[in-house]
Amino acid sequence: MTYCLAITVDSGLVFASDSRTNAGLDQVRTYSKMHRFGVDGERQIVILSAGNLATSQAVIARLQRDIGEAAASNLLTLPDLESAADYLGGLSRAEEEKHGAAVAKAGLSAEATFIIGGQVGRQPPRLFLVYPAGNFITTSEHTPYLQLGETKYGKVILDRIIRSQTGLDEAAHCALISLEGTMRSNATVGPPIELLSYRDGSLRLEHYVRLDQEDPFLLATRQCWNEKLLEAFRQLPPFTWHAAPRSATKG
Amino acid sequence: MTYCLAITVDSGLVFASDSRTNAGLDQVRTYSKMHRFGVDGERQIVILSAGNLATSQAVIARLQRDIGEAAASNLLTLPDLESAADYLGGLSRAEEEKHGAAVAKAGLSAEATFIIGGQVGRQPPRLFLVYPAGNFITTSEHTPYLQLGETKYGKVILDRIIRSQTGLDEAAHCALISLEGTMRSNATVGPPIELLSYRDGSLRLEHYVRLDQEDPFLLATRQCWNEKLLEAFRQLPPFTWHAAPRSATKG
Repeated sequence: MTYCLAITVDSGLVFASDSRTNAGLDQVRTYSKMHRFGVDGERQIVILSAGNLATSQAVIARLQRDIGEAAASNLLTLPDLESAADYLGGLSRAEEEKHGAAVAKAGLSAEATFIIGGQVGRQPPRLFLVYPAGNFITTSEHTPYLQLGETKYGKVILDRIIRSQTGLDEAAHCALISLEGTMRSNATVGPPIELLSYRDGSLRLEHYVRLDQEDPFLLATRQCWNEKLLEAFRQLPPFTWHAAPRSATKG
Repeated sequence: MTYCLAITVDSGLVFASDSRTNAGLDQVRTYSKMHRFGVDGERQIVILSAGNLATSQAVIARLQRDIGEAAASNLLTLPDLESAADYLGGLSRAEEEKHGAAVAKAGLSAEATFIIGGQVGRQPPRLFLVYPAGNFITTSEHTPYLQLGETKYGKVILDRIIRSQTGLDEAAHCALISLEGTMRSNATVGPPIELLSYRDGSLRLEHYVRLDQEDPFLLATRQCWNEKLLEAFRQLPPFTWHAAPRSATKG
């Protein structure tokens, strides 16, 4: 499986992804699921991928080829992020249709899902989640993040922390904690973790970090978070236990 | 859906459950999923239920009837918790087989899953998760808790906090936080929350609390936890961002 997420806050965007892939049932491998496109000073686009690895690799390769060949539509020329999401969705669906029936015979799915986000010129930063059918959704004031894959483990911490006014570094921290907790509770999500933050208006990808399992920063964060969580617990208001109702079957 | 959990620590057991049930697609109702059986000073047994409501109600009713009628096997006479889990599993599977085919025609499942735990006399406290097929698993040193239903949202906090030496009240707090976070992130899990702790050797259910959505203690816990989490975040080691790799397609 996979766990990827992207967060939008007032000051910019955060992207985070794990790197575990299983092609087939027992081929567990490591691949980056974070793909960057852009021209400094003009536009920056980041894509996170989940689902069938062959499909997502074919789609990313096609995006790169379209740029290289200066195709009529490509990520560096489309007028806005929404058009880019639509273009990505079309490529993904076409790739799925090409192999889906054959892949289904093996009991697998050729579907892939993507998050695409970034900024084009002076337009506001945007995030989209692109479904295998090619349709897509964006964020809202009350839904400031999008997730792919094993989304449930890491959702609670996002719901508690992320607000539109959350700082960019704090949002990145929160993405890291969300990923770290998911990795800990689900063996199919694995390191390295990639984290990237994009500051609104910068039109540059300035902040990126890739954390292996034994990365000293990741270890320090995990240990500190565990300690602080335990401290937080111990400061919760103490229970007022009531007497338990009499056993249902007594007397 | 449902979220129920039970935790075993050195000093005893904790049980927790939500109360949201949907029978059919739009009949959202409130039912207790926590059922207590026992004789003070002799044995205490707690059962948590998830899955098809008709099946779980029929099973609980049968357990009560067997006690009332002093059946050869009943929860008050079986020699240990393992036998009780086996007996519960048999009743559950029989009930599912009775209605399963008819229920499947409506596109639904008649399956129910249970957690059963407690203590019989001087035996150690035990916990079992009983599958719809009637088979069951118990806890281990590295798996000190069992969950039913929407298990993923609330798993991360359990993995971070629960150890065998965790105190009983602390384990109950942790169960509450696990449930509260799940309720917040998943609308199909709903109040009231029931919490019960059982102290090893007491052979009495002394501590129980039922918390409605607007319960002052629950509200205070939620607010305190949010504040403490945010404080904990702000104390995490700051990022050392690296420069982002050059955009994949630049130059």
